Amino acid sequence: MDAAPTRVAIVTFDGFNELDSFIALGLLNRLRPQGFTAEITGPGTHLTSMNGVSVEVQRPLEWANEAEVVLFGSGIYTRAIAENSSLMDRLTLDPLRQLIGAQCSGTLLLARLGLIGNMPACTDSTTKPWVVQAGVRVVDEPFHARGPVATAGGCMASQYLATWVMLKRAGLQATEQALHYVAPVGEKDEYVKKLVGVVQAFIAE
Amino acid sequence: MDAAPTRVAIVTFDGFNELDSFIALGLLNRLRPQGFTAEITGPGTHLTSMNGVSVEVQRPLEWANEAEVVLFGSGIYTRAIAENSSLMDRLTLDPLRQLIGAQCSGTLLLARLGLIGNMPACTDSTTKPWVVQAGVRVVDEPFHARGPVATAGGCMASQYLATWVMLKRAGLQATEQALHYVAPVGEKDEYVKKLVGVVQAFIAE
Repeated sequence: MDAAPTRVAIVTFDGFNELDSFIALGLLNRLRPQGFTAEITGPGTHLTSMNGVSVEVQRPLEWANEAEVVLFGSGIYTRAIAENSSLMDRLTLDPLRQLIGAQCSGTLLLARLGLIGNMPACTDSTTKPWVVQAGVRVVDEPFHARGPVATAGGCMASQYLATWVMLKRAGLQATEQALHYVAPVGEKDEYVKKLVGVVQAFIAE
Repeated sequence: MDAAPTRVAIVTFDGFNELDSFIALGLLNRLRPQGFTAEITGPGTHLTSMNGVSVEVQRPLEWANEAEVVLFGSGIYTRAIAENSSLMDRLTLDPLRQLIGAQCSGTLLLARLGLIGNMPACTDSTTKPWVVQAGVRVVDEPFHARGPVATAGGCMASQYLATWVMLKRAGLQATEQALHYVAPVGEKDEYVKKLVGVVQAFIAE
């Protein structure tokens, strides 16, 4: 019997931060045996990262509307993207049937989509003023989730977002196994314990 | 006055692990103000990752021979690449004038290039038998360096390789600043201290 598919849209725009998009993508695809596929999802055919790396888009932006999980990384043009209605209007996400997460300036996009509400949210220090201006209560924490919506702050906090998706969709054992594989040799147990410990506090089920 | 350039060749092949190549690239490009540029370096014009992401090659493989720093990530075809002389012979690296690092199956390529010698080296558990067969003494540690050559084990140990390059080429203050930026919010001090602590033990200068 196959596991229910977990299609993860790594929503990515020009100027994207490689750490955000590719850490989430790399970690979540460790669960391919559990039905996960995480793919670069965005407008157009190619996107160029903040450091000039051009990558092929794997799924059109609208694919995020169908995916089981939608993650927004950050990038150097996020403020302009948040104000670009013709781009943002292509997204009709639904927290009733999707897990939705963001990190750093990606949190601004979640706010723009009306998905944060009164939930405390994480972002990076550069983006913080804009997220606050959007009416969001920003907390100085690496990760915060409420139900199906999560945010993280700091590039490397992408690990927390990925761990959250793993725990919600694949359970503790598969999560620990996937994280154990990617962890630094000789530090695997402490690495897994740290990530799972931070995220599990936000998972009620 | 400009800092001396630090051109980092992120040597990448088809089937590459996104975590290895893009964590190093993302972290090291934080030091652009200090003259760093880290670029995807490899054969051909495009490379496809182990999870199907196609990226444009930024520098030809031979560019690694000129770069100040050369880093090898891992991938699912590394054993075949190590045996591909027409590919490997394009690399003429020189530890007398270059910093050279590798992680996981990338360590097999360093061994193939004769750059490990009797130095203890790190790799992942899957690659370990092949690295041992190549005559290398594998240690169960996340990071090990001797002079201008370093190895790391585990995908996320790419952070140690990047920290090593930063410390060697930009010094402690710039390294701490760059790592502080990317660290998870609320955990920045401990994150920086951990990475620098592990790596600094291997830096004599």
